[in-house]
Amino acid sequence: MESSGRGLKIAFIGAGSAVWSSRILIDIMLKKVLHGCKVYLMDINKERLELIYGFAKRYSEELGVNIEFYKTTDRVEAIKEADFVINSAMAGGHQYYELMREATEKEGYYRGINSVEWNMVSDYHTIWGYYQFKLYTSILRDIEEHAPNAWFINVANPVFELTTLAHRISKVKTIGLCHGYHGFYELVDGIGLNRFKIDEWEAVGFNHVIWLTKFKYDGRDGYELIDKWIEEKAEEYWKRWSVENLNPFNQQLSPAAVDMYKTYGLFPIGDTVRGGTWKYHWNLETKRKWYGMTGGPDSEIGWMLYIAFLQYRLMGIHEAVYDPSTRLTHRFPPISSGEELIDIIESIVTDTPKRFQLNIPNNGVLSGIPDNVAVEIPVIVDGKGYHRVSVTQLNSKVLYYVLYPRMMRMEWALEAFLKGGREKLLEWLMYDIRTRSEKQANEAINAMLSVPGNEEMAKHYS
Amino acid sequence: MESSGRGLKIAFIGAGSAVWSSRILIDIMLKKVLHGCKVYLMDINKERLELIYGFAKRYSEELGVNIEFYKTTDRVEAIKEADFVINSAMAGGHQYYELMREATEKEGYYRGINSVEWNMVSDYHTIWGYYQFKLYTSILRDIEEHAPNAWFINVANPVFELTTLAHRISKVKTIGLCHGYHGFYELVDGIGLNRFKIDEWEAVGFNHVIWLTKFKYDGRDGYELIDKWIEEKAEEYWKRWSVENLNPFNQQLSPAAVDMYKTYGLFPIGDTVRGGTWKYHWNLETKRKWYGMTGGPDSEIGWMLYIAFLQYRLMGIHEAVYDPSTRLTHRFPPISSGEELIDIIESIVTDTPKRFQLNIPNNGVLSGIPDNVAVEIPVIVDGKGYHRVSVTQLNSKVLYYVLYPRMMRMEWALEAFLKGGREKLLEWLMYDIRTRSEKQANEAINAMLSVPGNEEMAKHYS
Repeated sequence: MESSGRGLKIAFIGAGSAVWSSRILIDIMLKKVLHGCKVYLMDINKERLELIYGFAKRYSEELGVNIEFYKTTDRVEAIKEADFVINSAMAGGHQYYELMREATEKEGYYRGINSVEWNMVSDYHTIWGYYQFKLYTSILRDIEEHAPNAWFINVANPVFELTTLAHRISKVKTIGLCHGYHGFYELVDGIGLNRFKIDEWEAVGFNHVIWLTKFKYDGRDGYELIDKWIEEKAEEYWKRWSVENLNPFNQQLSPAAVDMYKTYGLFPIGDTVRGGTWKYHWNLETKRKWYGMTGGPDSEIGWMLYIAFLQYRLMGIHEAVYDPSTRLTHRFPPISSGEELIDIIESIVTDTPKRFQLNIPNNGVLSGIPDNVAVEIPVIVDGKGYHRVSVTQLNSKVLYYVLYPRMMRMEWALEAFLKGGREKLLEWLMYDIRTRSEKQANEAINAMLSVPGNEEMAKHYS
Repeated sequence: MESSGRGLKIAFIGAGSAVWSSRILIDIMLKKVLHGCKVYLMDINKERLELIYGFAKRYSEELGVNIEFYKTTDRVEAIKEADFVINSAMAGGHQYYELMREATEKEGYYRGINSVEWNMVSDYHTIWGYYQFKLYTSILRDIEEHAPNAWFINVANPVFELTTLAHRISKVKTIGLCHGYHGFYELVDGIGLNRFKIDEWEAVGFNHVIWLTKFKYDGRDGYELIDKWIEEKAEEYWKRWSVENLNPFNQQLSPAAVDMYKTYGLFPIGDTVRGGTWKYHWNLETKRKWYGMTGGPDSEIGWMLYIAFLQYRLMGIHEAVYDPSTRLTHRFPPISSGEELIDIIESIVTDTPKRFQLNIPNNGVLSGIPDNVAVEIPVIVDGKGYHRVSVTQLNSKVLYYVLYPRMMRMEWALEAFLKGGREKLLEWLMYDIRTRSEKQANEAINAMLSVPGNEEMAKHYS
């Protein structure tokens, strides 16, 4: 197995997302079967690129691992003849999107016009993701030209929109990946069960909108155990949680999650809990009722906590990498990140069939959803790629009240990106519950398109 | 051919809709091939039933036509062993729905909570159509039991929802029929063309949401002629029309229609023009901008004009039928109504293939629409029933911005009827641009469910 890594080239696009990349690079180094491979780190931000490159070099030296790391600001150099292209790039970076949020909040759109039913996630940029969609499309084109046989594993948001787009406009072997389904384990831990006694589980839907369709635990129906927890323990849990929980992402057992379960009949998993209709999101007061004192990750408080935390962790990496006296493997212990990205690569490289939760075109797996829409489902991955398996179907409540509105917004975001035209933005807002008049909608559009840096985007939507 | 009508039984459910029924009854009498048939007129309103029965008897005597008319308040008697069951019944009648409109308008929902994007039509009752859906379902069950081989031709609204429902819950041979597509001829007349020079045309979509996908005229591209009219004549036309047009239904060339064409890339036909997003419907002022001085048929003015007009015509029939000195064939001349209902029956009875515009399950005709959703499309009808033909596909704008939101509301209306539960009504309103808070939505629901007569409906949604 040792030799599998030899001759293998892995490209990281947006490697400067150092908090995330550093964890994945550790995963690669821990995977013996990949030793001998070449890893190209690419970013247009030179400072960040130096940082992650410095991290990778030092860390691999400390571990004594034989992996060749390269750094480049040239995307084609990174992608050329790669076997795997991993993308985590966010065009513009967080601050750019905060400007659009601010500009449109002033016109009466709390949390910005990108936030809509079942996509309240603050960095899941769809209708205002013009540059992000464009960057992603360019990466696809580079892969088509310079590494047509590569696997493209995309973790950059919006995974739902971008995965659907990729399969419609390109033949590149694309996989959308998100760790959100790990929320299931938080659920299991949270209600006091033992992860090792899970017999079977399954969550399906769209990325960030997945629902627990199967849960067997220790020979029992897991849903009975959830119901029991809600009946006997939830109130007590929420009493403490609502005043003590400072982690805005700790939402798997929030009142919002349980209310969604009661409303739609299946338990929402992971980032799904952050969605919902405006019922959960009108304003900070409403968000706090459903998501605790921070108002959840997508309130003005929760989101700033997240951005600050990211910054704090980035500074930690920076500090460690540029202090020669720090032993990186002490500061960032060599243990698996829990992300499955590198396990997927291992399954493909070694032709070892294993089950993963991926975003790929539906092609008949979920009833009621067109074939060419990306769904998030369990699949088997091996040397030949991914293989769909049959799954439990969603109930009609989830299908019609959750997936349909979410799918509609996805199609609108793709139409807006692919075709342009101001009316696409107006349509988006004419279905927004915050819109009070056509004038208000037009002013929000003007405000967004006037944000510095949006000149090209403004032309696209003129 | 004379004998085709012998042994044939046609049942009219809701025959007391006398303004409409009287025209269709004339059509039957004019169709020689149907002479000898039995026509059962059924309604629960005895007064109206007497009226239409009196009309039919007298009219057929004047014409010397051999058709046996029966009247009954017993639905099963009418349906039993019928070959065709025609339904135009509206549970509760117009006034009942006006009470729900009034009750929910008070809570901030202009024109009532039933009005939503792409269904602003004031008597196309979906989310508050509980009794209408229930009545329709009972008719289907009666046909299953007492006339399982009958053709069920439904003209009662909401045709889109009811046709979809029928094919999901019953094996009855159901056709949804609406004359709205005649709007195409108004378009042709309106822009100064000659109906007899139309080479080919086609409009497809959902009922009340159909779009001109094909138009060839006198060897030319009809769309070029529309464009020419818009460029050269529209402004002048609107100048007069906006101050002179007192027929709220005269909308085929309204500014709304042309704006929809510019926005979605295909021309909207018939009742489609009455739809759209709230852009066209915020309030009376906005409606007047797009639909002229009456504000269109679905404004508070236009709708009262329509109800009054119906009343006026009903009085006319009443007056004529109960005045023995009136010769009905003089007052209501024996000419075809222009409705195609009886032509459809003729095609089936005589096995004569002919093209009609019907509402039937999609089954692959329109891409992007599930098979089990009713579409309005041209089909060929003959003795074996209807046969789908291939049609021009809709563009992605119409598909994603028009059909998707309309389809979503259809599914929500069916879910609400089939499953019940208050949360179905709340979901409906949480996507309504007029909703300002969950409290407002709940108050509107309470107001609607408190309308006298809604006791059973309130239980269904408790």
